[in-house]
Amino acid sequence: MLDKPERSGGSGQSPSVSARLKVRNGEVTGHTAGMAPGFVQGNLCILPKEYATDFAAFCQRNPKPCPVIGMGAVGDPALPDLGDIDIRTDVPRYRVFKNGECVDEPTDIRAVWSSDLVTFVLGCSFSFEQPLLEEGIPLHHIGRDTVVPMYRTSIDCVPAGPFRGKMVVSMRMMTPADAIRAIQITSRFPAVHGAPVHIGIPEAIGVADIMKPDYGDPPPVVEKGMLPVFWACGVTPQSVVLNARPPLCITHKPGSMLITDRLNSRLAAL
Amino acid sequence: MLDKPERSGGSGQSPSVSARLKVRNGEVTGHTAGMAPGFVQGNLCILPKEYATDFAAFCQRNPKPCPVIGMGAVGDPALPDLGDIDIRTDVPRYRVFKNGECVDEPTDIRAVWSSDLVTFVLGCSFSFEQPLLEEGIPLHHIGRDTVVPMYRTSIDCVPAGPFRGKMVVSMRMMTPADAIRAIQITSRFPAVHGAPVHIGIPEAIGVADIMKPDYGDPPPVVEKGMLPVFWACGVTPQSVVLNARPPLCITHKPGSMLITDRLNSRLAAL
Repeated sequence: MLDKPERSGGSGQSPSVSARLKVRNGEVTGHTAGMAPGFVQGNLCILPKEYATDFAAFCQRNPKPCPVIGMGAVGDPALPDLGDIDIRTDVPRYRVFKNGECVDEPTDIRAVWSSDLVTFVLGCSFSFEQPLLEEGIPLHHIGRDTVVPMYRTSIDCVPAGPFRGKMVVSMRMMTPADAIRAIQITSRFPAVHGAPVHIGIPEAIGVADIMKPDYGDPPPVVEKGMLPVFWACGVTPQSVVLNARPPLCITHKPGSMLITDRLNSRLAAL
Repeated sequence: MLDKPERSGGSGQSPSVSARLKVRNGEVTGHTAGMAPGFVQGNLCILPKEYATDFAAFCQRNPKPCPVIGMGAVGDPALPDLGDIDIRTDVPRYRVFKNGECVDEPTDIRAVWSSDLVTFVLGCSFSFEQPLLEEGIPLHHIGRDTVVPMYRTSIDCVPAGPFRGKMVVSMRMMTPADAIRAIQITSRFPAVHGAPVHIGIPEAIGVADIMKPDYGDPPPVVEKGMLPVFWACGVTPQSVVLNARPPLCITHKPGSMLITDRLNSRLAAL
């Protein structure tokens, strides 16, 4: 349990705590990009306990797309190791899926919470993009204020129970020297997708046209001397879970993440 | 100082010590590949003290092609931190250069040694090829028993005094997944060239035709789905030194290396 956030704003409240209180009080209902900089933001997936064990196994077998950084006890909305969190109120906007179909986008889920639900929080690439930017590696989607391009690949995830499907990857275009440095930096962060899964030859992983991503925005036109670098993406578990059509599944709305008290820098393995 | 070799062959002599004694006694005059497996083999460069400081600065400024793992005191043929070494006798075959021209290839250099000579031992890629092979990454030149292809690039080394020139690189062809793993593994070994300097786009570093290396043997025909990965190469300092045409320079004959008592695995930074 985190007795206090990993960094405090002087004598006052941690930026992560005050950001999360604003969310809890309904003052923030949109995206969380740029809020509480330096603190880990997580992807959310809540499932009934009948599905939770198989999903835990799926994540364990596919740590690159599905890095679990927090998991709740059955029926318990608290995540004490990530902060003083009530998962029913602390995400700005949720998506509620029934049998794989989105039926609602509420700002809290107290009405649908029940004693058999299990919470999973998964690491997200926000946490490794910060150290990349800090080392002067340009990220085209951030520079152009677009969403990183994501692709469904031909890479099979290792299945577990009803959960199976292809890995989704995000792509960042880099010079070869930046790509080598980015591999080193992201290797230090296994909890937020870690090292890339592929570099340089999109068709080798089933990406036919790099200008036509399956999710997000198209990349800039490929310049000579740049290589596409592909990381496992947190869209993978969402796509896999919805394919399994559980009776209930609750996620965050993309971009509207859970802000935790954990520092990005503390996720570094070394 | 190493009181004893970093690993001993049970109660008997370390394989590195017995290999070096064979060299010292003139029983080995050819290459050292495969001798004392697991122990660091080093490149040799001996210069007059008037050149030694600038060469030390050159190596300090260009650690990827010129990783110094041992340096002698002026006039002293011992290298106590690498083992019980007499550098005048412990390399199977030397090359003696005068004003940049090779004038002799003796098996010992007691006759040309003098009190103003300074010894540099530089790490070599043998030390990182072993961990690559141990992780199942195929190395085409070893599989085919050829010399790794090496290329003079357009990358300028940082000059120091009379020492200046282009970086020479070695190339290993890999699948993208193996390339990512190889970047991780070699990043742990900064003392033996470390992470690659380039990946994927030979023309971006001035390599016009990958099938025509400047040193070593041509690579196999490039297969689809493979990427060329380039590491800084220990041929760089030799080429730079000979361009400076010092009155005297003594190196090892390529392939005929100094066997040290240091373990490859101890060169890992982490």
